[in-house]
Amino acid sequence: MNKLVGACIVGQSGGPTAVINSSLYGVIDAALKNPNITRVLGADHGITGVINDILYDMGQEDQLELEYLKYTPAAALGSCRYKMRDAASDSTDYYKILDTFKKHDVRYFFYIGGNDSMDTCNKISKFMQAEGYECRVIGVPKTIDNDLAGTDHCPGFGSAAKFIATVCTELASEAYAYTPGSVVVTEIMGRNAGWLAGSAGLASYMGDGPDLVYLPEIPFEMEKFLDDVEKVYKKQGHCLIAISEGVRYKDGSFVSHVKTSVSDGFGHAQLGGLAPLLAYAIQNRIGCKTRAIELSLLQRCAGHCASMTDIDEAFAAGNAALNFAADEGITDKMVAYRRIIDHGKYVCVPTMVDLDEAANDERKVPREWINEEGNGVTEDFIEYVMPLIQGEIPDIKHSSLPRYAHLKKVRV
Amino acid sequence: MNKLVGACIVGQSGGPTAVINSSLYGVIDAALKNPNITRVLGADHGITGVINDILYDMGQEDQLELEYLKYTPAAALGSCRYKMRDAASDSTDYYKILDTFKKHDVRYFFYIGGNDSMDTCNKISKFMQAEGYECRVIGVPKTIDNDLAGTDHCPGFGSAAKFIATVCTELASEAYAYTPGSVVVTEIMGRNAGWLAGSAGLASYMGDGPDLVYLPEIPFEMEKFLDDVEKVYKKQGHCLIAISEGVRYKDGSFVSHVKTSVSDGFGHAQLGGLAPLLAYAIQNRIGCKTRAIELSLLQRCAGHCASMTDIDEAFAAGNAALNFAADEGITDKMVAYRRIIDHGKYVCVPTMVDLDEAANDERKVPREWINEEGNGVTEDFIEYVMPLIQGEIPDIKHSSLPRYAHLKKVRV
Repeated sequence: MNKLVGACIVGQSGGPTAVINSSLYGVIDAALKNPNITRVLGADHGITGVINDILYDMGQEDQLELEYLKYTPAAALGSCRYKMRDAASDSTDYYKILDTFKKHDVRYFFYIGGNDSMDTCNKISKFMQAEGYECRVIGVPKTIDNDLAGTDHCPGFGSAAKFIATVCTELASEAYAYTPGSVVVTEIMGRNAGWLAGSAGLASYMGDGPDLVYLPEIPFEMEKFLDDVEKVYKKQGHCLIAISEGVRYKDGSFVSHVKTSVSDGFGHAQLGGLAPLLAYAIQNRIGCKTRAIELSLLQRCAGHCASMTDIDEAFAAGNAALNFAADEGITDKMVAYRRIIDHGKYVCVPTMVDLDEAANDERKVPREWINEEGNGVTEDFIEYVMPLIQGEIPDIKHSSLPRYAHLKKVRV
Repeated sequence: MNKLVGACIVGQSGGPTAVINSSLYGVIDAALKNPNITRVLGADHGITGVINDILYDMGQEDQLELEYLKYTPAAALGSCRYKMRDAASDSTDYYKILDTFKKHDVRYFFYIGGNDSMDTCNKISKFMQAEGYECRVIGVPKTIDNDLAGTDHCPGFGSAAKFIATVCTELASEAYAYTPGSVVVTEIMGRNAGWLAGSAGLASYMGDGPDLVYLPEIPFEMEKFLDDVEKVYKKQGHCLIAISEGVRYKDGSFVSHVKTSVSDGFGHAQLGGLAPLLAYAIQNRIGCKTRAIELSLLQRCAGHCASMTDIDEAFAAGNAALNFAADEGITDKMVAYRRIIDHGKYVCVPTMVDLDEAANDERKVPREWINEEGNGVTEDFIEYVMPLIQGEIPDIKHSSLPRYAHLKKVRV
């Protein structure tokens, strides 16, 4: 392997999670210690910061603030939802990126993000190869949706799953309070994959949780749904429902109102309004009191309820990205997690998969991990998720409120 | 004082909080140890359990489960929203209660609840006096709304305030992530008093929090509101708003859609839809991306983020209720908190106020604790709330999820 000495850029992209900054710290921490890395640069708002040459010198940050990154949700460098065109049709952005790379002698690029960000990584890497610019490109996965291919699970998912299971435990205790009680519909993120909604089932498994859980992997039938709810309500006088925002009818149309007027940069429809819609349908059918709750942004930034396992793994993923690239000459890969059960104990090992494999392929919940009725998850699902939510964050609050990292962001 | 020996009943009423069960445990714990109490009974679903003679023998519960009550949100015995008629117009319920009292030789009644529950306490106490049935009646306050008169603050408020400030810190970190960012409208409970919405200001005070905070104490002006938001958004490219569900126009009408078709037992209108309405208005004015978030039930049952100060004080309030009644012969009172600043340190002392004073009188945020602009809170507000959110709960989770009390509920 040829030794490659130069600067590195690390950037963050896509929707925030509780641990994306832990991965960021993982890259920075390893980079600052690696003799092949001459300078550690942070990209302002993801790839847009690289295109526009807005970079920060991570070497000038205080060590303590960098450490706080481990427990700081969202994206400390700023994120973006910027869709790279194919270089073949429009190479403007790519040449701007090449200019930035050349200007700062950047030989390493690490991009922390979801499916679309892995696609971005892949395109940049291929372009640099075509241009003959030597550069190693590694993607670091992150998505609460847990839908990236080629990895056992994704950094960010465990913490979101833990928050969802935690608040569902609490909502279940609420549900018992009155008699007759109400039907509470809890809407959970997840466009196409039901990993997050299914995680509400952890609460049920532990004794207090939703009575019914609906994933987008199962075609939604309104009559069947209302029958399910009525059955539970008649039996116990209250009902807690966890449902994925992405549930669709058999014909593929979303059950939620699709707000077509607003969409993100990738053309994904902005979903919303599913819970009120279902609450209304339930009230019409049963005549009971209902509540619609949308966990919304809370579920992807709940650092106060993060999984320490998730935080540590996200940090290790960042570390691995840097070390694989700088020490072993690896490029064009995404960090992936391999799960090993060692004497019955869960162990997670960072490994590498091809960017081609990871980009734009969505991993869904296997049918056999959803119960036959299509309104709950099986023990296999529980067994898969449970290790990912374990461990509590250390008490680093100030005045009993979260204490988050504040970077100086010294412009290069 | 004459010594009064007999059974006691404790019940829970009104909307759940994170610490109402801590007060319950406070009453039970002191009652089981007090020589004047022959039997400790729990009322199923508040006063309705007393009326219908559905009572549980608290002496038969496992000690460990009782201790877990301290950290279990909502109402373990079940709650109710039952409005007692005036005994003068319809005494049916009152005679049923008297029957229950006589049947089990009940000489002590403790009712944990908000304004309406204190009113219920008051009516029962007056009826028993008129009937010549010797019985001591004490109310134990609880309400996340913090609007009970005669007490420095209410059990349950500190924990709700802490959850609100915590998630607002996290939402602020989300708000920075994109550029241009969005305007996030966070709707917070509080029909008439702005204690909860104002608590979002704790996050701002600590460095990451809402840019604008609106309380129902200040008449709402849509144009002024949109001007405020636009100013912040133009300056920083994103804006986080915390607003009370109860904000009203100058003429007294709620800004939110009032769902007149559904109302609770006390005739309070069910509010909802404020955040989407404002998000829509903002989008129309500024043309930016918006998000409407309603904290909904999450804010009143967030045991995982409870204030240990709140839990301990709620327990002390339950303890005090029992001991004041059984040892000092006090009746017709509500437990209240007195705040003492001892050498600059916050101390909370349980004391007693007349039920007449506490019932149906609402305490609001003083005008001078809200900034002149009417879109934030002052340091006096922060200084008042800050001690109430302090302290973390012990780690008593199972599999990293909340471990709540499960009572046997052995029927008497």
